[in-house]
Amino acid sequence: MTGKLTVVGLGPGSAELTTPAVSRALAEATDLVGYTTYLDRVPVGIERQRRHGSDNRVEVERARHALSLAASGNNVVVVSSGDPGVFAMAAALFEAVESGDPSWRTLDIRIEPGVTAMLAAAAEAGAPLGGDFCAISLSDNLKAWATIAQRLEAAARGDFVIALYNPASVARPDQLGQAFDLLRSVKAPDTPVVFVRAAGTPEARLRIARLGDADPAGADMRTLVLVGSSRTRLIERPGGAPWIYTPRSERDVA
Amino acid sequence: MTGKLTVVGLGPGSAELTTPAVSRALAEATDLVGYTTYLDRVPVGIERQRRHGSDNRVEVERARHALSLAASGNNVVVVSSGDPGVFAMAAALFEAVESGDPSWRTLDIRIEPGVTAMLAAAAEAGAPLGGDFCAISLSDNLKAWATIAQRLEAAARGDFVIALYNPASVARPDQLGQAFDLLRSVKAPDTPVVFVRAAGTPEARLRIARLGDADPAGADMRTLVLVGSSRTRLIERPGGAPWIYTPRSERDVA
Repeated sequence: MTGKLTVVGLGPGSAELTTPAVSRALAEATDLVGYTTYLDRVPVGIERQRRHGSDNRVEVERARHALSLAASGNNVVVVSSGDPGVFAMAAALFEAVESGDPSWRTLDIRIEPGVTAMLAAAAEAGAPLGGDFCAISLSDNLKAWATIAQRLEAAARGDFVIALYNPASVARPDQLGQAFDLLRSVKAPDTPVVFVRAAGTPEARLRIARLGDADPAGADMRTLVLVGSSRTRLIERPGGAPWIYTPRSERDVA
Repeated sequence: MTGKLTVVGLGPGSAELTTPAVSRALAEATDLVGYTTYLDRVPVGIERQRRHGSDNRVEVERARHALSLAASGNNVVVVSSGDPGVFAMAAALFEAVESGDPSWRTLDIRIEPGVTAMLAAAAEAGAPLGGDFCAISLSDNLKAWATIAQRLEAAARGDFVIALYNPASVARPDQLGQAFDLLRSVKAPDTPVVFVRAAGTPEARLRIARLGDADPAGADMRTLVLVGSSRTRLIERPGGAPWIYTPRSERDVA
């Protein structure tokens, strides 16, 4: 088959954080497929470029549609936010390939990486991911809460910095509070917690708390929550929010 | 103070993966500070731009130098590979701030995120990071092997996909093998393991193995090793290496 399918990540929001490789793929595509909100972020590409927008939460159907278009010989780009491989469209695409038309396995499929929300959120705060870290999605649309709880506990016992994706939504208002309760049973109350909303956009907003009394309210689907390790600390500074960082070392620098 | 200091990540290698925000910061800087190998990747910027290259492994000294230059009123950019917040210069910079001249806390310090090696490596392989995942550096230059071992075990017990940074070097040839032994005590022998060398560059090379008999030889400082979760799987295809991906769901797609 001669069709081509590329799954790209736009990065967290600002066009300044979209890689040139992604911008080129978008400009050259005959067909763009994605959640409408993300497609709206893409500048106009080649003449006669077609845009196939869809609602959120229909990832596998969207992937099948993209694969069909590519199988017909088109140059298709599937658009994700952030990095396509992190809680985004790349896994959904391969789910569709695995369960779909065997001829789709002969397509030229590429993944173009991007800046995922966790990296943009960390950059807004300082360097909280300076040590080993985990990324966990709190959404239980596709996995059991028991699995999420087990991972939170393992991450806490391993003293990882923890990045929480999808911390809350209208349908799931209580899970971030439950996650904090679980983490409090292992991590110290003074562990720094950072809420970053709209990281990597001009509207980015930072809220700093301590795990012991961190208020889960206010987190939504655009919020990334970072929970520190035992080494994560604040640097106070005059005239600004403190920087949060995790030293690389287990010992303090002299 | 009027000086400015920005820590940037060039991404994994190809200039096509450097964000426009980072390219702009590099072009406008009066002073570039970094490991010489990374500085050599930066195109020429403004006239009279100064470059301060140094050897690897002197991160905090390099950070102090950058802070001094910024405190003198310069527009300084500290250059990292990948993302500056992931096993790179951002944490070293804040270590230097915390232990250094109190006036450094009034500087305009920014972190510009980038595509970290794990994301580029995953993109070369398919979508192995499709579920929850951890990133662990195997380097014991700054932390005890016991800490690393504890984290590996916690990550395995939590059934995370695991990205291993700095899996081996000339000085540490045996740690990846030790890590595999440790992971084998928890994870199944048929767990997919992917070695990606020079991810995100034209020389990228992929090797796929199973944890039960994965050979740690051949991994070096330019290799990123991904170890799957219990759900990570291969999609065989004609005429190419299999795709590796981790479904988002705990249940198979119909």
